Amino acid sequence: MTHPSESRFERGARALFEIDGEGGQKVVDSLADIAPDFARYIIEFPFGDIYSRPGLNLRSREIATIAALTALGNAAPQLKVHIQAGLNVGLSRDEIVETIMQMAVYAGFPAALNGLFAAKEVFQQEHSLAA
Amino acid sequence: MTHPSESRFERGARALFEIDGEGGQKVVDSLADIAPDFARYIIEFPFGDIYSRPGLNLRSREIATIAALTALGNAAPQLKVHIQAGLNVGLSRDEIVETIMQMAVYAGFPAALNGLFAAKEVFQQEHSLAA
Amino acid sequence: MTHPSESRFERGARALFEIDGEGGQKVVDSLADIAPDFARYIIEFPFGDIYSRPGLNLRSREIATIAALTALGNAAPQLKVHIQAGLNVGLSRDEIVETIMQMAVYAGFPAALNGLFAAKEVFQQEHSLAA
Amino acid sequence: MTHPSESRFERGARALFEIDGEGGQKVVDSLADIAPDFARYIIEFPFGDIYSRPGLNLRSREIATIAALTALGNAAPQLKVHIQAGLNVGLSRDEIVETIMQMAVYAGFPAALNGLFAAKEVFQQEHSLAA
Amino acid sequence: MTHPSESRFERGARALFEIDGEGGQKVVDSLADIAPDFARYIIEFPFGDIYSRPGLNLRSREIATIAALTALGNAAPQLKVHIQAGLNVGLSRDEIVETIMQMAVYAGFPAALNGLFAAKEVFQQEHSLAA
Amino acid sequence: MTHPSESRFERGARALFEIDGEGGQKVVDSLADIAPDFARYIIEFPFGDIYSRPGLNLRSREIATIAALTALGNAAPQLKVHIQAGLNVGLSRDEIVETIMQMAVYAGFPAALNGLFAAKEVFQQEHSLAA
Repeated sequence: MTHPSESRFERGARALFEIDGEGGQKVVDSLADIAPDFARYIIEFPFGDIYSRPGLNLRSREIATIAALTALGNAAPQLKVHIQAGLNVGLSRDEIVETIMQMAVYAGFPAALNGLFAAKEVFQQEHSLAA
Repeated sequence: MTHPSESRFERGARALFEIDGEGGQKVVDSLADIAPDFARYIIEFPFGDIYSRPGLNLRSREIATIAALTALGNAAPQLKVHIQAGLNVGLSRDEIVETIMQMAVYAGFPAALNGLFAAKEVFQQEHSLAA
Repeated sequence: MTHPSESRFERGARALFEIDGEGGQKVVDSLADIAPDFARYIIEFPFGDIYSRPGLNLRSREIATIAALTALGNAAPQLKVHIQAGLNVGLSRDEIVETIMQMAVYAGFPAALNGLFAAKEVFQQEHSLAA
Repeated sequence: MTHPSESRFERGARALFEIDGEGGQKVVDSLADIAPDFARYIIEFPFGDIYSRPGLNLRSREIATIAALTALGNAAPQLKVHIQAGLNVGLSRDEIVETIMQMAVYAGFPAALNGLFAAKEVFQQEHSLAA
Repeated sequence: MTHPSESRFERGARALFEIDGEGGQKVVDSLADIAPDFARYIIEFPFGDIYSRPGLNLRSREIATIAALTALGNAAPQLKVHIQAGLNVGLSRDEIVETIMQMAVYAGFPAALNGLFAAKEVFQQEHSLAA
Repeated sequence: MTHPSESRFERGARALFEIDGEGGQKVVDSLADIAPDFARYIIEFPFGDIYSRPGLNLRSREIATIAALTALGNAAPQLKVHIQAGLNVGLSRDEIVETIMQMAVYAGFPAALNGLFAAKEVFQQEHSLAA
């Protein structure tokens, strides 16, 4: 997944687009007037360094992220971005719902419930865009 | 993965053994004198209901659990049980390490660091048992 | 509180209605198109298994739940459902407010403050329904 | 529970002794060389202000505290102090175990499990002191 | 910062006004009909006791609070009040943004991102008030 | 604090040594056999990117980190490293104790208490090393 001549930033920007699609770019744009360096860090570290590593495929990486954000329960906007990202990299709706439901075991039923409602919202938006 | 004639408890006990091996039985035994019903619930709900569902394979389920427990950072004994469980269901050490490292992005570097030290401990025990 | 011939689901549905009233049914309904099995699990495990246990009365159980959800601070909709549930099972407004205020000691003043604002909203809705 | 002529500190010291017994004094003593003012605040605010309030009895207050500390899962020593405090103010072992088990619903099975192991430890110490 | 003849309440009210300005009074007012004693506790303990202590200046105290509320990620209204408070006691926008960005390291990128969006909102309101 | 010709890694290694002293190197060494790339990321992102930024001095950065790790309450080893780091960059023991005590307001008394005990341990070790 890495090209030898790419910089971290280039590699990260490519991964961000592949994974988050427009959602990623929106986040980057929204930082322009408050913390533009932070937008660069997001591209470079999570996407240029971590998501670009071999050793775990993107489907598994999105399962891990959806699980963690559901369990933490305090980052609803980012959870929605990654539910969409999960669809983008090939997870089925069922696999996403199963991942979120499982979090009832590790972080309680309210965390899972709020994760399911986030998924419902993302799936509905996707449906209305597709219609 | 479900047998039509099995009770939730039987299905859960089978899943617990397949996933957690001896680690699961130890947890069950340790509850005998304080809350034996809770041992039954662990077998029935997480294992009999959730882990036994089709729609997400056990490898993906363990990635989700390892991610969540690393991110929450307040359940070290259970994280170790599930790092071992990840190995039991076929995750490579590399896949487990990648999952944990990724949590630096979502829960911070200390959470990822403590997760890596938990993995190191589990891998070393496994090595010394195998030797 | 248990009837010998009831299934877990029947017992849980009865407990859910007794405790959460319409709030519980709304949650169940909202899961119909995304994760209907999860609605069944909510009825069976928290309500059919846990809340139906003897050994702790429903008033004490709601104090425990209101305390925990206030302290965790990341499940506002569920906290509101359980503040209403507390009233349903006989807690006074004062007892609910005392429980939430005490969380300042264990989870900080912002968590308690957000819990008090949730209680204010529930009490006002109840008042306007009663008017 | 309040005496008109008492200061907050006096009222708090009395409540701390009634609730936490020797466990409370140990905490106060352990702060002497690092932050003695903080020991005074613990006596004055949680115990002199909050636990001394009418409107919720001490048994209910300890249920709230045990629930919250189990759910947060990052304050094991304080959870043990309050499991002992629960016994001191008249909760049965069963009521404490029920409170902790219920937290599986709101904060996940690992949090409840670690709470149960804390209770087991406190109950065993009490037993060995009584023998 | 303390006046010998002041009560804790007087000292706290003065500190609250100096630090939080109108934001603090709004919180106090909003508690009048639900938990007026809690408004008094907020004035007395956090502001009368803690923020009034010598040994750490108010600029450093607000850095600590902004860092903690960003990291916890479950108290957005209070974070905004303290970003404004940081400006009130002399922190620059840059210092606030740096503090929040640093939380990506300790609590993950989503926590830092949500903190930056809170800062953006506070800075914009301030700008429009000043215009 | 940045030298134009330095790489991120060189800049980070220098900052890590300045801030964490031997504690930082120990963490790096302990990752050698489990996740050496993660050691590199720690040097590059937190230290090479974040701590090396102008706009907030190292004393303020350590106050932010000590506050956050005390409040989160689930990363005791890292909190101790950063209490030592605070002393290394010029914070007084009093300033560190004040920062931790203040967390009682935002994350509860147990979190502050456990932070104070961590500080006590670090201060005692330093004392015995100096003796």
